[in-house]
Amino acid sequence: MPAMDFQLILDEINDELRPLLPTAGGKVASYIPALARVSPLQFGIALRTNAGQTAAAGDSAVPFSIQSMSKVFSLTLAIRALGEAMWDRIGREPSGSSFNSLVQLESEHGIPRNPFINAGAIAVADRLVSQGDAKAELLALLGRLCGEPVHIDAEVARSEADTGFRNTALANFMKGFGTLDNDVATVLDVYFNQCAIAMSCEQVACAAGYLCRDGGHPLAGTPVLSAAQARRVNALMLTCGTYDAAGEFAFRIGLPCKSGVGGGIVAVVPDRLSLCVWSPALDATGNSLLGRRALELFVARTGLSVF
Amino acid sequence: MPAMDFQLILDEINDELRPLLPTAGGKVASYIPALARVSPLQFGIALRTNAGQTAAAGDSAVPFSIQSMSKVFSLTLAIRALGEAMWDRIGREPSGSSFNSLVQLESEHGIPRNPFINAGAIAVADRLVSQGDAKAELLALLGRLCGEPVHIDAEVARSEADTGFRNTALANFMKGFGTLDNDVATVLDVYFNQCAIAMSCEQVACAAGYLCRDGGHPLAGTPVLSAAQARRVNALMLTCGTYDAAGEFAFRIGLPCKSGVGGGIVAVVPDRLSLCVWSPALDATGNSLLGRRALELFVARTGLSVF
Amino acid sequence: MPAMDFQLILDEINDELRPLLPTAGGKVASYIPALARVSPLQFGIALRTNAGQTAAAGDSAVPFSIQSMSKVFSLTLAIRALGEAMWDRIGREPSGSSFNSLVQLESEHGIPRNPFINAGAIAVADRLVSQGDAKAELLALLGRLCGEPVHIDAEVARSEADTGFRNTALANFMKGFGTLDNDVATVLDVYFNQCAIAMSCEQVACAAGYLCRDGGHPLAGTPVLSAAQARRVNALMLTCGTYDAAGEFAFRIGLPCKSGVGGGIVAVVPDRLSLCVWSPALDATGNSLLGRRALELFVARTGLSVF
Amino acid sequence: MPAMDFQLILDEINDELRPLLPTAGGKVASYIPALARVSPLQFGIALRTNAGQTAAAGDSAVPFSIQSMSKVFSLTLAIRALGEAMWDRIGREPSGSSFNSLVQLESEHGIPRNPFINAGAIAVADRLVSQGDAKAELLALLGRLCGEPVHIDAEVARSEADTGFRNTALANFMKGFGTLDNDVATVLDVYFNQCAIAMSCEQVACAAGYLCRDGGHPLAGTPVLSAAQARRVNALMLTCGTYDAAGEFAFRIGLPCKSGVGGGIVAVVPDRLSLCVWSPALDATGNSLLGRRALELFVARTGLSVF
Repeated sequence: MPAMDFQLILDEINDELRPLLPTAGGKVASYIPALARVSPLQFGIALRTNAGQTAAAGDSAVPFSIQSMSKVFSLTLAIRALGEAMWDRIGREPSGSSFNSLVQLESEHGIPRNPFINAGAIAVADRLVSQGDAKAELLALLGRLCGEPVHIDAEVARSEADTGFRNTALANFMKGFGTLDNDVATVLDVYFNQCAIAMSCEQVACAAGYLCRDGGHPLAGTPVLSAAQARRVNALMLTCGTYDAAGEFAFRIGLPCKSGVGGGIVAVVPDRLSLCVWSPALDATGNSLLGRRALELFVARTGLSVF
Repeated sequence: MPAMDFQLILDEINDELRPLLPTAGGKVASYIPALARVSPLQFGIALRTNAGQTAAAGDSAVPFSIQSMSKVFSLTLAIRALGEAMWDRIGREPSGSSFNSLVQLESEHGIPRNPFINAGAIAVADRLVSQGDAKAELLALLGRLCGEPVHIDAEVARSEADTGFRNTALANFMKGFGTLDNDVATVLDVYFNQCAIAMSCEQVACAAGYLCRDGGHPLAGTPVLSAAQARRVNALMLTCGTYDAAGEFAFRIGLPCKSGVGGGIVAVVPDRLSLCVWSPALDATGNSLLGRRALELFVARTGLSVF
Repeated sequence: MPAMDFQLILDEINDELRPLLPTAGGKVASYIPALARVSPLQFGIALRTNAGQTAAAGDSAVPFSIQSMSKVFSLTLAIRALGEAMWDRIGREPSGSSFNSLVQLESEHGIPRNPFINAGAIAVADRLVSQGDAKAELLALLGRLCGEPVHIDAEVARSEADTGFRNTALANFMKGFGTLDNDVATVLDVYFNQCAIAMSCEQVACAAGYLCRDGGHPLAGTPVLSAAQARRVNALMLTCGTYDAAGEFAFRIGLPCKSGVGGGIVAVVPDRLSLCVWSPALDATGNSLLGRRALELFVARTGLSVF
Repeated sequence: MPAMDFQLILDEINDELRPLLPTAGGKVASYIPALARVSPLQFGIALRTNAGQTAAAGDSAVPFSIQSMSKVFSLTLAIRALGEAMWDRIGREPSGSSFNSLVQLESEHGIPRNPFINAGAIAVADRLVSQGDAKAELLALLGRLCGEPVHIDAEVARSEADTGFRNTALANFMKGFGTLDNDVATVLDVYFNQCAIAMSCEQVACAAGYLCRDGGHPLAGTPVLSAAQARRVNALMLTCGTYDAAGEFAFRIGLPCKSGVGGGIVAVVPDRLSLCVWSPALDATGNSLLGRRALELFVARTGLSVF
């Protein structure tokens, strides 16, 4: 495979997309004040290769709310703790409907379709609560993965809790089905806090490095997950990682991705690199509008796609 | 990448799985007599690499009813004829429910979620009918792709038509929404006939070769699809190709696959090879039970997976 | 109970509503040309008491397409032929969703929720086909009930068949579930023809007379249904007779009613009278807009309501 | 209308059904310990006519948990306070699915289908909270209606709260849609307490007397509701009062009824009498098994039915 000048590629993507920020459209997530206040006029991108090379452009060092991107890392923690048992009451199929829909949960008796829909991530949080201090462990994992401490934005966490009626409904719904082991409030506290973690593109790109390294720690090389487990997380990201646009992401981008309503998207090129892009304005599917375009440009320029 | 002795690997898989045939369980599709009569005690596997190497084991030369695997080729024909316009009234998202469910079709006003659910394949057939003699063109395409003529099993086609009430319902439902252009009976005739095409593992493995060659004809090298189009068909196979088990296939196998209720599964290793496995007994998700296991073994032994 | 001057009351209702015809809004059913051509500027009302008194006003003698009102009479025929066995594969619960929805039919395995949704009426037609010449018997029953021959509007019947994709889907769907005994085309021919029967308000008001007379023939007094059967048809009309507005009809009108998209509504005051109102323009729920208002006025003026 | 010996009729019903108690089947509601402990071997029935005549048999004086029967009275309170505005965000249509289903609530954006499904009753409780001390007012109303104080079973109320995950989900779900005005916990406190009210058949039969008296107080005659409002509550009971068996109740019994999982059913014969029956064992639809049979016997013997 030819060497690529990734810094040049990211600079070009930044140069092409940054001028579009004022007019590209999309909407910053508005359901909580702390997210609604974020300026949409930001764009950052960063990557880290398996060889340890880094590249970054734009607002790549600005911390943002990782929101649902945290689901990749909480899932990783749970797989580490529980192995295959993690999957006893959480499915692995795309949901085929809005990311917080209760319908499927009802027809499937409280078993979430996959760990990346909200219900599934709450179920993962429940498993983590059974294992210990979930918040602390998640922060510790992320700190180790990106080589520097990360923190929870307390205001965002509070706002999540104050307005998280849908998620509270989901958790109670599962509790009613008996598929949640712990106290609803405790589980939701973990979930709301994990969504409120703030990280920069550079930090996320580094932290996700085990997913393109057969599970190996991006800095230390020691196993975070087994190779098979890492591949499976990638598979879940590709089939379920971007809400109801997963098919479209696979079709147009062809990389395992996980997005968050904070405007971030983390992507993995297996055996090559991990990447994070961020721009706060979201399209109708809840994915970062320019983030998505940046990934399309990246794939078009590099030819890197799993297909 | 190291050279692999694919013939040895396929032989080992055959040796491991063939003894399980009498006891592995699963059920041959029984909805039409011609399929119900097929002996479940058969297993075949074949592949063809981009370098033109072939390998095969078991009942790899026995023709079987390709059923829904035909959807890959009818989609290919439609993309060739219509380009991006193919997607005007067909989605690209996983369906998240039973493969012939009408529910999603109703809530989405007659737009099938993707071209691999029955409704979507009927919509593809409708587009082909608008372009010319769909049956003849599909047979011609398949004949060119595998280098020898393929035929429709007339008895199977007749049985499909006699018992295809669900598919007739789907077609009428779309016609009622105005998302089908042609006469229902004409469209269904194409659909029922494409499902009744008979091919062997060796033929299918060869025919699918353009999907691992950036769209290039497996024998002639000339473009069947563009590279981007071929990648996108692969993406659709991975996210939507195996009914409601697509997530599980991605998780455990990690290759673009398309299965049929005749017991065949075609799989693609991008840039490497195309593969077909066949064993008639199906699991609860409608996918070949031993075919699925064969693919898991293949991936475990070769390490070939897109993730 | 005091004697009421029903002729005066119907005249007053006609006087009050007729001037509203040009501006009241609503839309004539447009899915078939023969219905779309009907002038919306028509309003008729007629009733017949158990004592044999008749009253009528407006366009009460103009024949119109009875459409789904025919479901009351086909159900009656089927109950006469099959008794309790009529209910083996047809439910009696309100559907809680659009009158031709397939969703419930799927989740309930081809068993229609009640005989007044389209799927249910098709299932009733299927039972009638098993009994003999369903069209002839239905016409004969209606002729006996209103004392003069009624006929099928052949153009409407043809149009129903030409555009009845949804109903064809429903029938095939049930056939796929095995809940339809006869050939789909034969059953649909009965269904499309029963919907195309033309009758006037006066004829319908007379024909429905057995429902307010404990099942007794409106003219001859001989049993059409048993008293319990007649009560049960009334109960079904009240809970399921007006599509997804049944609750609203019960709330505001409080009488067993069955409407049709031709703009007719037949209503029953148990032990007192049967009534038919007609005005072609429909509201958003598919019920006659002024017909509904006429029934509200009738109930307000007479105090006649089952509650 | 002929005078009927109601005491004789109730005695006969009691004599016929009481021997069936040990073998009739059905299951006492088990979701909270206080309900699960109730002996299923109980049967009571009581009625009160518009003339003030009372009749009772069996365990008619034993207090039981009225559960969802309370929804009739909380609705009455809300109509008194808000008039037509009560209906701004609560529908009047049968739900066509399980009584605590979230599905319809989602597709209809947080507007419950009717005030008798759990979501609807929680919405009614929300309106009452906006008006004042809902619990106190409900107890006061019930006390006035049956002429003696009624109380809340504190243990049942506590258990409802401890296990009410589904209802908590429903309330949070509506809060997320913005269709609940007050704090979720406050609203649920009212709802859980109203369900825990304990009354006897004799008390309920008396209290419901305004529904058969055109809204007039059963003892004092003063208006509780207007005549039209009372008729409409009856209509809602008939179409929506018995979970997913409302059609079957209308078909077989033909009276406005409201059931509760405590095993009670209150029924209304407009212009004649109000009736309450109680037996704790429930059938598969959540309605009292012998209570339902008692109502069928009552209707068969008296001929009293609205149809």
